[in-house]
Amino acid sequence: MALPTSVKLFEMAPRDGLQNEPGNSVPTATKIALVERLANAGITHIEAASFVSPKWVPQMGDAAEVMAGIKRQPGVVYSALTPNLKGLENALTVGVEEVAVFGAASEAFSQKNINCSIAESLTRFEPVLDRARDVGVRVRGYVSCVLGCPYEGEIAPHKVAEVAKALYEMGCYEVSLGDTIGVGTPLSAKRMIEAVQQQVPIEFLAAHFHDTYGMALANLYAVMEEGVSVIDTATAGLGGCPYAKGASGNVATEDVLYLLEGLGIETGIDLQAVIDTGYWITSELGRKPSAKVALAKGPSR
Amino acid sequence: MALPTSVKLFEMAPRDGLQNEPGNSVPTATKIALVERLANAGITHIEAASFVSPKWVPQMGDAAEVMAGIKRQPGVVYSALTPNLKGLENALTVGVEEVAVFGAASEAFSQKNINCSIAESLTRFEPVLDRARDVGVRVRGYVSCVLGCPYEGEIAPHKVAEVAKALYEMGCYEVSLGDTIGVGTPLSAKRMIEAVQQQVPIEFLAAHFHDTYGMALANLYAVMEEGVSVIDTATAGLGGCPYAKGASGNVATEDVLYLLEGLGIETGIDLQAVIDTGYWITSELGRKPSAKVALAKGPSR
Repeated sequence: MALPTSVKLFEMAPRDGLQNEPGNSVPTATKIALVERLANAGITHIEAASFVSPKWVPQMGDAAEVMAGIKRQPGVVYSALTPNLKGLENALTVGVEEVAVFGAASEAFSQKNINCSIAESLTRFEPVLDRARDVGVRVRGYVSCVLGCPYEGEIAPHKVAEVAKALYEMGCYEVSLGDTIGVGTPLSAKRMIEAVQQQVPIEFLAAHFHDTYGMALANLYAVMEEGVSVIDTATAGLGGCPYAKGASGNVATEDVLYLLEGLGIETGIDLQAVIDTGYWITSELGRKPSAKVALAKGPSR
Repeated sequence: MALPTSVKLFEMAPRDGLQNEPGNSVPTATKIALVERLANAGITHIEAASFVSPKWVPQMGDAAEVMAGIKRQPGVVYSALTPNLKGLENALTVGVEEVAVFGAASEAFSQKNINCSIAESLTRFEPVLDRARDVGVRVRGYVSCVLGCPYEGEIAPHKVAEVAKALYEMGCYEVSLGDTIGVGTPLSAKRMIEAVQQQVPIEFLAAHFHDTYGMALANLYAVMEEGVSVIDTATAGLGGCPYAKGASGNVATEDVLYLLEGLGIETGIDLQAVIDTGYWITSELGRKPSAKVALAKGPSR
């Protein structure tokens, strides 16, 4: 049960964060500046955009402009969500080097969120994975609702393991396990990881936890004890819906960094630079960071 | 590293929570109602008042009226903070059955907070302990700044252990270890507990963590792995100063209950009743609970 000596953070704010802002209100230049500031802070993996239909997610309608506009730094991966082949082709035109597909461990959530069964979604990902392999683009797989579903309630760990295994065997280099509604606790998180790692080696698993019930850091600590060493976070805790009751986004990058520093776990990321970036982007959005560490430490002067 | 099967929560909202409200704004009847609602929710240990000079803490000036006004339930302990013999005598006049003394692991904090050195504070507690023993009143001991001090920075675990040992040997039946400024992480929390339990048996230790940096639940999980089974919490996360930058109170009872339920740890407390109490008291104070679980679940209709 030794903790990992280093952890890779995968930054979600530009995509999973900003896609939840109301309307299509964030200027393209702001999105690009956010990605560049995060990279300057030392973050090496950033999900920068989503190539989905602007009919469904107008917030990401400028994905190609964002990806094309980023001044890329060596050693930083800028990835994009590509739910289907069309999204992938669009992403390839702007030189994306890594993409992601998005599945669920809950049948009901899969139907409501992506309008198909889990099995159908996996079939739909196959041509994306094939094409990505052909052009040398890495693919990350997401599984949502791994610790609970808003429609089905509890999700059995073996169900998560099945979907994770399918994505891994299909060619995903990493599978990110999402507690989409933030209902998990350390025990359910550990049990889920124990089931999944029987199908996918633990070094290829990432924890993607939302902090809706305040459990994210405790759950991350528990799964790091199991050996998980990749964590998805969003600067300023962006994501969720800022106007809905109790909704809350990804666990905040600032809070996870503070936790990791306290545990002596290396990330190579400058916490104060992330705090400053969080204050900047939330001031652009007209609010404060929802990262307790950011509020406690404050921006630098 | 097995977690405890049951945990005792010690509720802080009426004292550590309300003493931080500005001015002397909370009516005595509201304080009494808060204590009674918490007991109705199944909480068995409630710090209900503080017998300090109203010159220093005007918020607690009605301590005697509060203690006398509570309709007491069998099986519930209503305790009060009594920093000196005068406070204890006042508390005894209204039939208190348990009191508490408040020390620090940091010399600088002791000087600033209670105007004396750690050694002097311990000397000052002796007559309180003696008198309490004579009249059959139990005494709880607090140690503040166990994971960091706003003036000194890091606090050595052996310093915490020394103060905890002194309080325990003086006759405190339980020693509550306070991360007053919420800076600890699971590693520093575990190291501190490991040092203290060499001096005081773990069953007599309580964790009193503030959530200023969002670490409280992760830290509680870590110290429960070490065997700690008493946790101080405040309904709605009351405490700290609601108007100061980043200040934040005790870890919220609601959040800790949700964590414990998820871990299969028994408390005998009705989470929804606590959530409702939190919404009620914060509406009296003109704000919302700062408990994520309360925000996510909402009050019952």
